[in-house]
Amino acid sequence: MVSSPKSVIVTGANRGIGLTIVKELVKDSGIKTLIVTARDPKTATDLHSIKDPRIHILPLEVTSDESIDRFVDQVKKIVGDDGLNCLINNAGAAFHYTTNSTPSRSLLTEQFDVNTVSVVILTQKLLPLLRKSASRSTGDHLSISRSAILNISSGLASIADNTFGSTTAVPMLAYAMSKTAINQFTKMLSIDLKKDHILAVCFEPGWIKTNLGGPMAQFTLEEAIPTLVETFYKLNESHNGGYFYRDLKPLPY
Amino acid sequence: MVSSPKSVIVTGANRGIGLTIVKELVKDSGIKTLIVTARDPKTATDLHSIKDPRIHILPLEVTSDESIDRFVDQVKKIVGDDGLNCLINNAGAAFHYTTNSTPSRSLLTEQFDVNTVSVVILTQKLLPLLRKSASRSTGDHLSISRSAILNISSGLASIADNTFGSTTAVPMLAYAMSKTAINQFTKMLSIDLKKDHILAVCFEPGWIKTNLGGPMAQFTLEEAIPTLVETFYKLNESHNGGYFYRDLKPLPY
Repeated sequence: MVSSPKSVIVTGANRGIGLTIVKELVKDSGIKTLIVTARDPKTATDLHSIKDPRIHILPLEVTSDESIDRFVDQVKKIVGDDGLNCLINNAGAAFHYTTNSTPSRSLLTEQFDVNTVSVVILTQKLLPLLRKSASRSTGDHLSISRSAILNISSGLASIADNTFGSTTAVPMLAYAMSKTAINQFTKMLSIDLKKDHILAVCFEPGWIKTNLGGPMAQFTLEEAIPTLVETFYKLNESHNGGYFYRDLKPLPY
Repeated sequence: MVSSPKSVIVTGANRGIGLTIVKELVKDSGIKTLIVTARDPKTATDLHSIKDPRIHILPLEVTSDESIDRFVDQVKKIVGDDGLNCLINNAGAAFHYTTNSTPSRSLLTEQFDVNTVSVVILTQKLLPLLRKSASRSTGDHLSISRSAILNISSGLASIADNTFGSTTAVPMLAYAMSKTAINQFTKMLSIDLKKDHILAVCFEPGWIKTNLGGPMAQFTLEEAIPTLVETFYKLNESHNGGYFYRDLKPLPY
């Protein structure tokens, strides 16, 4: 029997993978609080249409420290003494950039800011709440129902599996680097937070038909995301620090 | 018989690993032009003391696009129609940062800017000169005497080998992420530039007693760097995109 996290945060939940993760999670009646973020909640019509009293739609611009601080304050009030069980870092962006692009420091910096630096900052600022939930259990087990950081990475983050480069079909030099750095961040977290009993795992959800993945992608959201969310529930200490496909098959870094 | 690159650039050559690479390279009489950089050449007394007419000490602040542009113009004039054979991206910095540090977007951004973004920009801007030298040979062989980009990475960049985390002895969360991203960049280059016959490889030089490595490090510069430079001369197409110790033993990404 797998138990449910009481509280979950999903960032970048207004569309695509984030939205579909939320749609899967609401099916779990064990979840008491689902905090979902959008840069502008007013326009997040798909989130509002789910209409579940457990859902809190909060504004979050991950590239703004002020926005993160306001968000963390709101989360504190919502989860209270229970702390936060599960943070799903999904918000991100993909800028086209190749070895042959006109060199652009600003584009590269923004890509790292959105996908890497912001994930580090948000995660650090939520650590007190993740530690609080972890400390409410005893023993050394790890799970999303205790305390977990799940980072939505990408298959393009794999250095070992990279056979495409950036100049043919996939102009994702900057994006891939930003996600490779997230894989290293996940590994760091898994070591640093093991004594706190917080799980850290990163995922390749698959090449999915979204704004980011484009229309040529292999899978629909409905094909890919239910498997990914099932996998979240299977995670334990043996997966800590790992990099997995949505079906929990490991990828090389 | 291994042949010499006619021209080599070493960035961040005023001290430590960069300086010691230069001291090794000057022993190769086949090298005609050694372009070495420092943020402020006036204070690079160790470089000036080498006193070899083949050495050009040029100012380069890798985080400044204007400085890079001035540098590339000077390199063009120096190497002329021969182009550039070998770029050694060594300049870098290491900022202390751990999972438990006070969250700092500016520190993380600066770490990525110095170690990652700047390496991408400088490399891109030198590509025309690297392509020029590569096109002067025929066939598909790769070597530092034809055209090569050698990135000085770190053992801390390995995600697979990371067992330390950031909160115990090695407060290098930001540094490790920035170098992991460089390993992905190297892999991208190796694929994108294969058709241009430009080699791209990244290295873990070892934990060395330098300003960055600290006094507790395992090796002196004199123990480690001669092996690293010998390895440069052994590189061929079988090493393209790889991540190696200074003795050419591969590391997992």
